[in-house]
Amino acid sequence: VPHEFDQHIAVIDVGDGTYAAELSPGWEVGGHINGGYLLAVLGNAVAQTLPAKPDPISISAYYLSASVPGPAQVTARVLREGGSLATVAAELRQGDEVRLTALATYGSLADAGGEVPAGWAGSAAPPDLPHPDECVPGTMAPPEVLEMAPFVRRFDVRFDHRMVGWALGQPSGRGEMQAWLRLADGREPDPVSLLMAVDSLPPVSMDLGRTGWAPTLELTAYVRAVPAPGWLRVRHATRFVQGGMFEEDCEVWDSTDRLVAQSRQLARLPRS
Amino acid sequence: VPHEFDQHIAVIDVGDGTYAAELSPGWEVGGHINGGYLLAVLGNAVAQTLPAKPDPISISAYYLSASVPGPAQVTARVLREGGSLATVAAELRQGDEVRLTALATYGSLADAGGEVPAGWAGSAAPPDLPHPDECVPGTMAPPEVLEMAPFVRRFDVRFDHRMVGWALGQPSGRGEMQAWLRLADGREPDPVSLLMAVDSLPPVSMDLGRTGWAPTLELTAYVRAVPAPGWLRVRHATRFVQGGMFEEDCEVWDSTDRLVAQSRQLARLPRS
Repeated sequence: VPHEFDQHIAVIDVGDGTYAAELSPGWEVGGHINGGYLLAVLGNAVAQTLPAKPDPISISAYYLSASVPGPAQVTARVLREGGSLATVAAELRQGDEVRLTALATYGSLADAGGEVPAGWAGSAAPPDLPHPDECVPGTMAPPEVLEMAPFVRRFDVRFDHRMVGWALGQPSGRGEMQAWLRLADGREPDPVSLLMAVDSLPPVSMDLGRTGWAPTLELTAYVRAVPAPGWLRVRHATRFVQGGMFEEDCEVWDSTDRLVAQSRQLARLPRS
Repeated sequence: VPHEFDQHIAVIDVGDGTYAAELSPGWEVGGHINGGYLLAVLGNAVAQTLPAKPDPISISAYYLSASVPGPAQVTARVLREGGSLATVAAELRQGDEVRLTALATYGSLADAGGEVPAGWAGSAAPPDLPHPDECVPGTMAPPEVLEMAPFVRRFDVRFDHRMVGWALGQPSGRGEMQAWLRLADGREPDPVSLLMAVDSLPPVSMDLGRTGWAPTLELTAYVRAVPAPGWLRVRHATRFVQGGMFEEDCEVWDSTDRLVAQSRQLARLPRS
């Protein structure tokens, strides 16, 4: 039996660089379809366009209109293919409406070269998280949240209990959260699912006491390595909240303590 | 007399969303034209397409081939315009070769809303820099560097002397540098010139002892505010060097201690 996630991101090649998809209602949050899921659907279509370069290395998406459950079309156009990388323009549409438009560079992460150069003195470390059993599962959300966010059921997510004040009406004001993350159906992470993982936690605006929807204008994700099986650790944080906007940085680490994806998005700060 | 920078990024509307530009040899570094300058040329053409929304809010560029001094064409196509923002696809070409392709959202930064929400506990601060007179001017580079990098003459740049070991054969290995920056001709910063500022310092791979060219695959810049006149402070840093790639984060602060732009790029680590 295929995993739920693979069914939900499945696309059918209908020719001329066009792919048919069916957006699942299971990824709705408050009436909107999660942007990371949309990126994974688009990213999956692009991967099928480029069999020898199946992995997203960098993808930048601009979100133009809100998607709804149901049929969608992805078009992918190769702009340049040469050497180990290809750059593609892609769009996800529903009817005449473009939902997101993207540019991406794909390649093969299996070909990635040596790990870390001699002399590198960087000290970035995975987020410090308590054991999953000591964290707060997403399914502990109030019934009305689970009702408006079927999205939550797609994951086994365990929030760091030291950073969940936002869920209890006591946001820290720092704009940060971190969690363990797996797909609920047991599907292991891969480069395409990381495109979803980078937008899987609630917006950090929640931790500023703004509980409304924070629409993403732009999101760029870099997939830095093929993830190992097991839990992912995801950290979201913002440093600059001004002019009605905030950037949200995300890091995703795998079970071997390797950074496997990072992203940054620019989103509108909810008014309340 | 127009400022040099405005002459170098000037475009002529030749109709149908197409603009003619002339890439100046003054922006070459080791035989390559600086990517931030190219982004400013493209960004200037997009601004002319959208008179009521002249400011780049977010721009994501994929660099496909190396530019050369001389004629270039920018094409800009509005994908969606509604409310206070417009999203555009743009390309910079030379002959049949696409040099960079981009997606961007433009608006008016003068319309940006309230500054910082109540409850925001973030503590991001401008880079700590010694007085410009205590810093190391870019023009102190060896004659052979100035010869291969006419780019250096475009700026008054003053590097933090505590982070210039890379210039003396003693890279710190941490992958960071910071500097004061102004255009040499005295032109004050504006949102379009910030697209150049985010890629104006040497790549941080220099501070890892890799002195070769670090080609940018992708760069996304967010312009967060209209900069005040005067010196900019620019900080570049990387946290993750792996698989032959590194990300470079840039912050640009203005003379009033406000973050005015931030960017992230993914670049190939030079082999030596």
